[in-house]
Amino acid sequence: MRGLVLTDAGPQLCHDRPIPTPGHGEALVRVRLAGICATDLALIAGYKGGYRGVLGHEFVGEVVAAPDAPEWINRRVVGEINMGCGACDLCRRGLGKHCRKRQSLGIIGRDGALADYLTLPLANLHEVPANVSDDEAVFTEPLAAALEVLEQVHITPDSRVVVVGDGRLGLLISQVLALTGCDLTTVGKHPAKLALLREWQTGCTLLSDDPALDQAVNADVVVEATGSPAGFAAARTLVRPGGTVVLKSTFAGGLPQFDISSLVVDEITLVGSRCGPFAPALRCLATGRVQVTPLIQARFGLDDGVAALTAAGRRGMLKVVVAPS
Amino acid sequence: MRGLVLTDAGPQLCHDRPIPTPGHGEALVRVRLAGICATDLALIAGYKGGYRGVLGHEFVGEVVAAPDAPEWINRRVVGEINMGCGACDLCRRGLGKHCRKRQSLGIIGRDGALADYLTLPLANLHEVPANVSDDEAVFTEPLAAALEVLEQVHITPDSRVVVVGDGRLGLLISQVLALTGCDLTTVGKHPAKLALLREWQTGCTLLSDDPALDQAVNADVVVEATGSPAGFAAARTLVRPGGTVVLKSTFAGGLPQFDISSLVVDEITLVGSRCGPFAPALRCLATGRVQVTPLIQARFGLDDGVAALTAAGRRGMLKVVVAPS
Repeated sequence: MRGLVLTDAGPQLCHDRPIPTPGHGEALVRVRLAGICATDLALIAGYKGGYRGVLGHEFVGEVVAAPDAPEWINRRVVGEINMGCGACDLCRRGLGKHCRKRQSLGIIGRDGALADYLTLPLANLHEVPANVSDDEAVFTEPLAAALEVLEQVHITPDSRVVVVGDGRLGLLISQVLALTGCDLTTVGKHPAKLALLREWQTGCTLLSDDPALDQAVNADVVVEATGSPAGFAAARTLVRPGGTVVLKSTFAGGLPQFDISSLVVDEITLVGSRCGPFAPALRCLATGRVQVTPLIQARFGLDDGVAALTAAGRRGMLKVVVAPS
Repeated sequence: MRGLVLTDAGPQLCHDRPIPTPGHGEALVRVRLAGICATDLALIAGYKGGYRGVLGHEFVGEVVAAPDAPEWINRRVVGEINMGCGACDLCRRGLGKHCRKRQSLGIIGRDGALADYLTLPLANLHEVPANVSDDEAVFTEPLAAALEVLEQVHITPDSRVVVVGDGRLGLLISQVLALTGCDLTTVGKHPAKLALLREWQTGCTLLSDDPALDQAVNADVVVEATGSPAGFAAARTLVRPGGTVVLKSTFAGGLPQFDISSLVVDEITLVGSRCGPFAPALRCLATGRVQVTPLIQARFGLDDGVAALTAAGRRGMLKVVVAPS
């Protein structure tokens, strides 16, 4: 089969990758559509140095083999990406997604979704409702990551919330948070992206337009979705004392000027946030509560996978999707 | 009156400080006993550079004048230390203790408790129950700060909790957390202090005794009460992915090697924690649920106030109290 493989020489399209064999309790999935995410680009840039294998963890596909559960065959599915060892203290406490020996699809120890086929445990799969298109279903994983904010922080209708960042993830997070009825503002740099938010009836502001983005905002919750030191600094300025900053992105170069003591004095809570729940993400897609297809900005075939990665890395690019067939 | 004043030349006992005049809604309080806290020592060392005035914010005293509410006269009281402006957005939202223009007794803009008299708004005062001694009541403020952990983090009987630090605050925090029934271990360096915890039936371990203080602990919540980079590093190692680290101390020199991205990957929550609620602190003292008098390690008169500050700064010293009369 074909697979977009991260090698020592960078990402390469391989044509002779063996079709993976599903293990006990696993399914073989034919990929229908895959998405490219910032994590893929970070892996290529050397994040966590060392992943080598097929890239990609956002996908929708159909089950073509499931030795232990043939009823899954032909079902259209999306899949959670983490696989714990099942035996350690964390797995036994239901924290398998954080297992220190975990595999993560296309990220740690398990070939990913930018290929013709992948395997995943049946326990990781979720059937896609019939009224959710492939273009929508491919957003299940990042939408789940956006919903994780609501799993971790109790945002109420009366909360004052700011999302810093109007990128792929920021736009999903903003839509999800708007569902709470909270007083929401998204701060971004790209007029075209903020126009999407306006269309979705979500408050937003262009960074350069608003000199008042200062301490007077006193947000209860700020979600940092840029992964840049400037974004973190903005979040720290915008949050009120006693408030919460949710970190949705890793910071490639660290934070040179991080004043941890100010967190104590101002009683700030920092919440690291990563993967989230798939079932509510599929519900949001099935009910039309979240709009995702306007985020698709470019579409490639798998044969042009390397070009797709390059396109996804362009500044301001929203979602790039890759169709194997 | 006498006052232990932080001057440009360091702390000095002044004998001719004017007795403060209570403003509208305020009371004049005669100090019966005051405590010295790490914050006092940090102010002397230059923290927040600039406070000049009477030091001290832990006290028990009696009201000797209250122009607007004479019924308070002769009541034995403790007092919350923060005074908001009352007019800003934060104050109007009930967040006066975080008001950016706040005064804090003996810390920001308001003479403190290491003196014969102080003034505070009546709204800040709490009457001390008759069965709580002065030696106990003087711990109300730090005990409230310990209780703040339970205000911010939901610790359940099934939680696995570690307190890093067996200093003054660490010992109060450990006692308070033990009330939840949680699986609690306090990590410290001082056998004599850990012996107190053993007496109180609280789990504890000497840092050097236990090579197993590693990732295998997987604590749900770790409370950092040392203010040292080593303490933070220990907290980060001991907490499980998805868990919470509560920061109870500021870090004088910052944290040179803080990996903020790991908070995202491991979904760690950092909670900055400062002042807490006085009413439950007084309840804990009145009901004997928390033992504080064993923490008093030295006792001085106000005339020996400078020596008291020096004693409080000695390594391993627990609480130093100062009696004006």
